[in-house]
Amino acid sequence: MINTLYLPELREMLAENDRTGLQEFCGALHPARVAEFMEGLEAIEMWQVLQATEPDVRADIFSFVEEAKQVEIVETVGPEGISRLIADMPADDRVDLLSEVDQEVMEQTLPLLPQEDRRETLRLLGYAEGTAGALMTTEVARLSQTLTVHDALEAISRQSQDLETVYYNYVVDDQDHLLGLVSARDLVVNFTRPDTPISDLMQRDVVTVLVTDDQEAVAEKVANYNFIAIPVVDHHRKLLGIITHDDVIDVLQEEATEDAHRSASVDPLEDGYLETVWHQLAWKRGIWLTVLFVAALLTALALRGYEEDFQKVTWLVLFIPLVISSGGNTGSQSATLVIRGLTTGDVNLRDWRRVLRKELAMGLCLGGSLAAIGYLCAVMLTRSVPESADGVASAVNAVPTLWEVLVVPITLLLVVMCGTMTGGLLPLLFQRMGLDPALMSNQFVAGIVDIAGILIYMTVAMIMVPGLW
Amino acid sequence: MINTLYLPELREMLAENDRTGLQEFCGALHPARVAEFMEGLEAIEMWQVLQATEPDVRADIFSFVEEAKQVEIVETVGPEGISRLIADMPADDRVDLLSEVDQEVMEQTLPLLPQEDRRETLRLLGYAEGTAGALMTTEVARLSQTLTVHDALEAISRQSQDLETVYYNYVVDDQDHLLGLVSARDLVVNFTRPDTPISDLMQRDVVTVLVTDDQEAVAEKVANYNFIAIPVVDHHRKLLGIITHDDVIDVLQEEATEDAHRSASVDPLEDGYLETVWHQLAWKRGIWLTVLFVAALLTALALRGYEEDFQKVTWLVLFIPLVISSGGNTGSQSATLVIRGLTTGDVNLRDWRRVLRKELAMGLCLGGSLAAIGYLCAVMLTRSVPESADGVASAVNAVPTLWEVLVVPITLLLVVMCGTMTGGLLPLLFQRMGLDPALMSNQFVAGIVDIAGILIYMTVAMIMVPGLW
Repeated sequence: MINTLYLPELREMLAENDRTGLQEFCGALHPARVAEFMEGLEAIEMWQVLQATEPDVRADIFSFVEEAKQVEIVETVGPEGISRLIADMPADDRVDLLSEVDQEVMEQTLPLLPQEDRRETLRLLGYAEGTAGALMTTEVARLSQTLTVHDALEAISRQSQDLETVYYNYVVDDQDHLLGLVSARDLVVNFTRPDTPISDLMQRDVVTVLVTDDQEAVAEKVANYNFIAIPVVDHHRKLLGIITHDDVIDVLQEEATEDAHRSASVDPLEDGYLETVWHQLAWKRGIWLTVLFVAALLTALALRGYEEDFQKVTWLVLFIPLVISSGGNTGSQSATLVIRGLTTGDVNLRDWRRVLRKELAMGLCLGGSLAAIGYLCAVMLTRSVPESADGVASAVNAVPTLWEVLVVPITLLLVVMCGTMTGGLLPLLFQRMGLDPALMSNQFVAGIVDIAGILIYMTVAMIMVPGLW
Repeated sequence: MINTLYLPELREMLAENDRTGLQEFCGALHPARVAEFMEGLEAIEMWQVLQATEPDVRADIFSFVEEAKQVEIVETVGPEGISRLIADMPADDRVDLLSEVDQEVMEQTLPLLPQEDRRETLRLLGYAEGTAGALMTTEVARLSQTLTVHDALEAISRQSQDLETVYYNYVVDDQDHLLGLVSARDLVVNFTRPDTPISDLMQRDVVTVLVTDDQEAVAEKVANYNFIAIPVVDHHRKLLGIITHDDVIDVLQEEATEDAHRSASVDPLEDGYLETVWHQLAWKRGIWLTVLFVAALLTALALRGYEEDFQKVTWLVLFIPLVISSGGNTGSQSATLVIRGLTTGDVNLRDWRRVLRKELAMGLCLGGSLAAIGYLCAVMLTRSVPESADGVASAVNAVPTLWEVLVVPITLLLVVMCGTMTGGLLPLLFQRMGLDPALMSNQFVAGIVDIAGILIYMTVAMIMVPGLW
């Protein structure tokens, strides 16, 4: 929801070119709030507000502006105007932004950055999206192990302008190999013992991630260990950068969105739903929809073998959707529970026997209940045949016996069991084969159970209804 | 996956009662790693390892042990043995644990805690689950605004043993009203100007949450502002505690799991999938399954009105599952995209017109494509009628004309459009009515579209196929 609380004031100050007012506004609030209050402004107006502030506050506020708007601002202002702001941004945000703007704008902006920032940006741009390298920032405090607490505090204090965080500081040798971690906590706690060498305080067993690690693995580590940041190293344990807790939260949310999309058979979107252009959205939905459609065609193929039977026993048609949706719904439940369990680490491959037992019990219990309700309703539905216009029950719709109607509950029990088994075990099988279990989406499970459901239904009917065999 | 790397060594040290070895093991690694390596041990063995370590390291390691195992340890060791460890835990973790253990054990443990810890625990136990109060810890640095940087660092250094974080420190008046925030960063940066009063540094516009706020709202704020912690206040802006970034990550993961479960019509589980007892799992799945089942019964009711028609035109039966699954799949896609958009703040209620337009376009485009494929397949399926045993195409299965088969693509287009509209707009309607849009799960949308699909299918057939009207 766009916050319009301060929009009139902001616009007035802009109209009057009230730089002091704007500066005060930007300085008094948290940068994230300023960005929030500016959301309703046009790109060019935002830029005018930002110009009124101090350069470092400007970069802070700009980092909190939505990415789509950032891109708009960069493309409106142009390389010359914007390069200073871009140089002031944290390296990871800068790279994210530059990889989003128009290729030409990026190529014109890069040469305008200070040499060091430019080199760093080019290097970070080289890491594949979704890896630790693409997520990290290089602005991290590097300390020598010979420092004392007092010296370390002084060194950090001096560098702090350029640091993403001062909370985790890394001790390295002169080739940048990671030796240990000294947190701001360690330093502050020992503030009253300023001569303590940091090598006495530092944690030597530092948990790291490789620059090529997947961002999901990074997020999992930070979440498990409750870290504020995690260092990124290469194969020689050379410190390349850090990933901070706020980036991890972004990754976790991104991954949750991806999983949600996959569960509904949508190829994960890169941008928000509203921002995705229609042909991209149509493709990402259409591709899976077509696959599911082809699978559903198999149900038509399966039913074709029974066309004559339906002509003889029409009431069987009534329960086709009921039977297949019951199987599909139970299957989706099982699949979602197991996939989410695998994602959160609650379920592991070696738990397959427990999953099997659990889903078997669920199938019996849920299938049994639905079968009981289903039998009652099926009896009622087939007994009270609707009357034809002439007031007599139509002769063609012969009323099935209570025995014959048993086809419905028996099928329901079997189909629900088929659903729980398929939904519970297929994600594990996918994981076992090294595939993403989330690919076994609700709809895929439902598709498989649909076909199985029709085959089960008709087989049970063949056995139970006289004259069908 | 349980890490069994150090299990043999740990068991050997336990057997030999090698306290020095155990102490070294626990001290050398990050507490989270120690907890990880102990995962394979029995509760009583874990307790023996923990006893070998220093009390404060012990509490740290214990905090990282899985909750189910924590409960087991507490219930195995008993109130007398465990009370010291429980007193050493951070207040929020302590409360989480005590609300999980056996009521009797809790009542016996509480009197054994130091008075202050006991009072605090009782107070925190009083906040409703899912609120900021239940999530917060009370161990936060409170500073007076008259302090200088040097004094503040000293004060924090002194209190640090009892603090959950030293990174955010709050300036309060003598009635604990929140005046401002001084981060460790502010202090470290000004380390070289030790006489600066902290009132010069402190941020006065502190973003807070109310103690009664929902945990989801808390997580959203921390995620948006990239905070390490957020202060919890009452209505008089009195500082009650803080919530730290690691708790926020837990909340975000919990909420993602809840949303995933809801999307598959499972009432969110409180514990993990494997830990949930079967009758609870059966209830949480069965309740929604029954609701969906009753909805599906309506499809049977709808079909009953057309029994005679199916007898006349049997080939219509073949495409029932295809038609309804296409509608259901598209509907689930739309619902998931919009629900996830609402959750991440990417979509708002006032965007309903854009959602409408988008889903209309999607419906036309996806429905049109499926209709084209569907027509081709339907023609093929109905032309190549399987032959009866006597080698002649069965007379009852009259081959439909190309015109008649148009029923299938026309229905597909309409059903897919119905799916995108229902899936796209119902979550917005739910949100508008103050309900959780996630209740409009994939299966509910599918259920609604199923019934609509059958009605559309039969209506189109009535119009297109001669002799059915």
